[in-house]
Amino acid sequence: MVQLRIALAQINPTVGDLEGNCGAIADYARRAADDGAHLAVFPEMAVTGYSVEDLALRNGFVAASIEAVHRLAERLAADGLGRLPVVVGFLDRRVGGSAPFGQPAGAPQNALALLHGGAVRLVSAKHHLPNYGVFDEFRYFVPGDTLPVVRLHGADIAFAVCEDLWQDGGPVAAVRAARAGMLITLNGSPYERGKGGVRLDLCRRRARETGAAIGYVNMTGGQDDLVFEGDSLVVDAHGELVSRAPRFEESLHTTDIELPEGPDEADLPGEAGGFRIVRHTVGGRPGAPAPARAPVLTPCPDPLNDTGEVYRALVAAVRDHVHKNGFASVAVGADGGAGAALTAAIAADAVGADRVHALVMPGPGAREEALNAAEKAAAAQGLAVRVRSVQGLVDAYGAAVGSSSDAAALGAQARGGLVAALSRQEGHLVLATGDKTALAIGAAALHGDHAGAFAPLRDCWRTLVEDLARWRNARAASEGAPDPVPAECLTPDGVPAAVDGGAADAAADADPRVLDALLEAYIGTDKGVHDLAADGFAPGLVRRAVRLVDRAEHRRRAYPPGPKITKRALGRDRRLPITSRWG
Amino acid sequence: MVQLRIALAQINPTVGDLEGNCGAIADYARRAADDGAHLAVFPEMAVTGYSVEDLALRNGFVAASIEAVHRLAERLAADGLGRLPVVVGFLDRRVGGSAPFGQPAGAPQNALALLHGGAVRLVSAKHHLPNYGVFDEFRYFVPGDTLPVVRLHGADIAFAVCEDLWQDGGPVAAVRAARAGMLITLNGSPYERGKGGVRLDLCRRRARETGAAIGYVNMTGGQDDLVFEGDSLVVDAHGELVSRAPRFEESLHTTDIELPEGPDEADLPGEAGGFRIVRHTVGGRPGAPAPARAPVLTPCPDPLNDTGEVYRALVAAVRDHVHKNGFASVAVGADGGAGAALTAAIAADAVGADRVHALVMPGPGAREEALNAAEKAAAAQGLAVRVRSVQGLVDAYGAAVGSSSDAAALGAQARGGLVAALSRQEGHLVLATGDKTALAIGAAALHGDHAGAFAPLRDCWRTLVEDLARWRNARAASEGAPDPVPAECLTPDGVPAAVDGGAADAAADADPRVLDALLEAYIGTDKGVHDLAADGFAPGLVRRAVRLVDRAEHRRRAYPPGPKITKRALGRDRRLPITSRWG
Repeated sequence: MVQLRIALAQINPTVGDLEGNCGAIADYARRAADDGAHLAVFPEMAVTGYSVEDLALRNGFVAASIEAVHRLAERLAADGLGRLPVVVGFLDRRVGGSAPFGQPAGAPQNALALLHGGAVRLVSAKHHLPNYGVFDEFRYFVPGDTLPVVRLHGADIAFAVCEDLWQDGGPVAAVRAARAGMLITLNGSPYERGKGGVRLDLCRRRARETGAAIGYVNMTGGQDDLVFEGDSLVVDAHGELVSRAPRFEESLHTTDIELPEGPDEADLPGEAGGFRIVRHTVGGRPGAPAPARAPVLTPCPDPLNDTGEVYRALVAAVRDHVHKNGFASVAVGADGGAGAALTAAIAADAVGADRVHALVMPGPGAREEALNAAEKAAAAQGLAVRVRSVQGLVDAYGAAVGSSSDAAALGAQARGGLVAALSRQEGHLVLATGDKTALAIGAAALHGDHAGAFAPLRDCWRTLVEDLARWRNARAASEGAPDPVPAECLTPDGVPAAVDGGAADAAADADPRVLDALLEAYIGTDKGVHDLAADGFAPGLVRRAVRLVDRAEHRRRAYPPGPKITKRALGRDRRLPITSRWG
Repeated sequence: MVQLRIALAQINPTVGDLEGNCGAIADYARRAADDGAHLAVFPEMAVTGYSVEDLALRNGFVAASIEAVHRLAERLAADGLGRLPVVVGFLDRRVGGSAPFGQPAGAPQNALALLHGGAVRLVSAKHHLPNYGVFDEFRYFVPGDTLPVVRLHGADIAFAVCEDLWQDGGPVAAVRAARAGMLITLNGSPYERGKGGVRLDLCRRRARETGAAIGYVNMTGGQDDLVFEGDSLVVDAHGELVSRAPRFEESLHTTDIELPEGPDEADLPGEAGGFRIVRHTVGGRPGAPAPARAPVLTPCPDPLNDTGEVYRALVAAVRDHVHKNGFASVAVGADGGAGAALTAAIAADAVGADRVHALVMPGPGAREEALNAAEKAAAAQGLAVRVRSVQGLVDAYGAAVGSSSDAAALGAQARGGLVAALSRQEGHLVLATGDKTALAIGAAALHGDHAGAFAPLRDCWRTLVEDLARWRNARAASEGAPDPVPAECLTPDGVPAAVDGGAADAAADADPRVLDALLEAYIGTDKGVHDLAADGFAPGLVRRAVRLVDRAEHRRRAYPPGPKITKRALGRDRRLPITSRWG
């Protein structure tokens, strides 16, 4: 057996920032070397960030990615790290570089490279290209057809990229025939509620199928509407969990593992299951084995009680959306509702309370108690809070529009406008506070008090918003701190106020939990009008809710983006059911 | 030879409106029968509209589409149209209905059906699934593997769907072996500048390759960010253009054509090129041939002088976005710029001038001459125009924000807010007036005077906006009408005002034509910073423009959708170059 120390570098790359990402890789490689690791592995597309989307179709960007990987190999050697094998994900192109009509121009590939001794020693590309949910990889990549195996100090380690682990067949199915002792996959696997358990089960199953230990390294952090959770892990060849990294934070996850010595090279196949096996050898037998250490084994949350994980995902999404887009601070309109208070709490945890600018805005449409609740929340969170009346704005709007009949709606709009005006002046990113329920039924208005540039709660039902608030309050209580979302904000007085005509009727008289259950059944599953009625929802409510969902489509498409945490996010590019026309 | 009258029904379906679409199909089938047609063919996905996006993954919707096609066949027979063969595009599922992991759930297919005698007689699915540009069909469909051939009164007509005509191989390549006299393709082919010429060239080439006449039926109208141009046509077996339908309008395009009699059935192959040939026979020899008529042959625009075609595409996009989303009217902030005046002119042509509500809004940031130009434009267009000062709003914003230093920016924001407030009250859809140049460099602000829910000029460079305005003025002049975009709006005084911090520096001192050329080279092609400098653009301008484009990404993603008219639209879901990080 060969005793190895494997470092899985769970980093947070930024799409397009080749220099910054390669800098992070060099830093983590240094840490891995200092820690005595025999190998450092980085996530899928660590060099470019994920998802690069149509950048993959730009030859200049592909060339820059390839160039960056070669410069990185040289830099690692120049930094004295040339003896540490480093495996990174990057954007490559297929040799030849052409693809038939209908395949991505330039034949880009989602690839991995082994860097060692100052050079790129081995390259291989992802075979299975996911094209469902948040993935569109058939659009961006052409598939690879090799299985890379590195003989590292006598033990054989195979590598693959993300989806290749999830789908049957492909290079992973060839690992057993290749007789590798370990398989390490590079991942850019977005968070989704409850996915953690599925991921571990998959790794255990693949270990038993391949007869190899499995290493799984995933990126972490937020990028646009995706959040990556990390959760890197190692299971042994029997499928037993050996180590597991923390989630939603950067981590150099180092694990000691014993692997069998590789067979005589003469006994090894050159091909298996249609995949050409490409090999490279690093070092002889290792000098002195690293003194073995107890593995890090971060407990995984209970998938049935994952509220805290959702919260952490939203914090990561906000933090990285703010920073990766060059902002240092955010602004939120604090209306006393659970959505606004929770958004502010998430933002405070993401960028620091002193960088969250809350505006409490008295005036038409705002109840005294709600304003008090908003102030109480802002004080509890330690936000930079200001109180500014919108009465003057409402009067001015009313005078200009020539009506004062919808003062509450004008108040909502004035609040959205005031937050935007202040943010433009002071350079904040405006967080929109609309939630999934409001978005579904059309109550999240483009120009109202839910306006903004990034919507952290976009994929959270109103009931989940309340659950998240209670979870965050409980954490505050355990720290002796006051409730960041005071009970006054949580009063279950219905769904968010309808600020733009037409959304009120189905919402106003429905219990929020019933409405959310109905919307989840309708949008989150495949249920139609008749199924919903059969499930016991009042037919009148079903009819009205479905009609609202249908009518709100243009609003959803115009509403700002936010992190996806479910399979059925109300994406701006993914059409919703429009059952009122066919159900 | 067999003399046939073929009706290509160039209709404008609405996504999800199965009942409305089937109603339109029944209407057009009636008109075809009344016109003596032997066959009526409708576009790709005519029953469901295109693109259905993730609706394809909802079993309930697939079932509703299949059911709708069967009901349509019965309805046609009940309406006395059972003897007319009708071919429609619809959403089907593969028999068996399952697909491997990684393929679309439920195995949906982009299919066609032959309806005759009250029943569905033949079904076949699209083989080549486009997955580039505006298409994502690998996400939604599984491919078909048959070539349908209908013996119609003795002549053999093959059918295929859209992309099957564009890609080599596939069912179209099997048409020659199947010895069909004609191939008719059903299309949902979006408009793109200059595509008309390419389409005709393709049809001519396929005619020569297959030895068959080609019929091409395309949908028309706007759907979300796509515009379909129609341009249905027929070429004979020698590749000569026989007839061509008008563009951007619904049309029953009927063409008389002589086709060879089909060979003895015993001589026909059951398979060709890997495609199973599925056959159906309709009628014997036709009774009396219809009296032959001269074909409709609409001239196609010069692709090098296509400004009028772009204009018509934008009119169709606005008309259908308004109506398909349940609105009857629009509102536009008239700031005296070319973008706003052109947007209003497009809207007036789309929904009628009396349904376009223009607001002229004096106050900070608006020059007297610009306001006069805006009023002149609105008067020339016959809009419902109102003048409302934003001074009160700016004062109120200034008082609430605690600053009067950025009065112009507050004025811009107040204008956006006022249009929104008025529209909410009166039920208009707000048209955003930002153009591609403003969007590229970050000058189209989410909360400013370019705000709105649909952005007609989203994919039009500032220079194209001016060209479109001049084209529309020329048309008005030819009708003896005043300029809808008066010369005062066209003063080339630079790119749109930067209303949100940071966008001004590169824009302010650059000639708009130079800036647009630079942005087109950078975004529309694959040029990087060094290429642009080599092309003669001032290195300082290149650097600043590229940095602005990079920094504006979060704004582009949050900006409302608009019609795509180029391959490199600034889509919200397609990442732009971010060269300042790697170029």
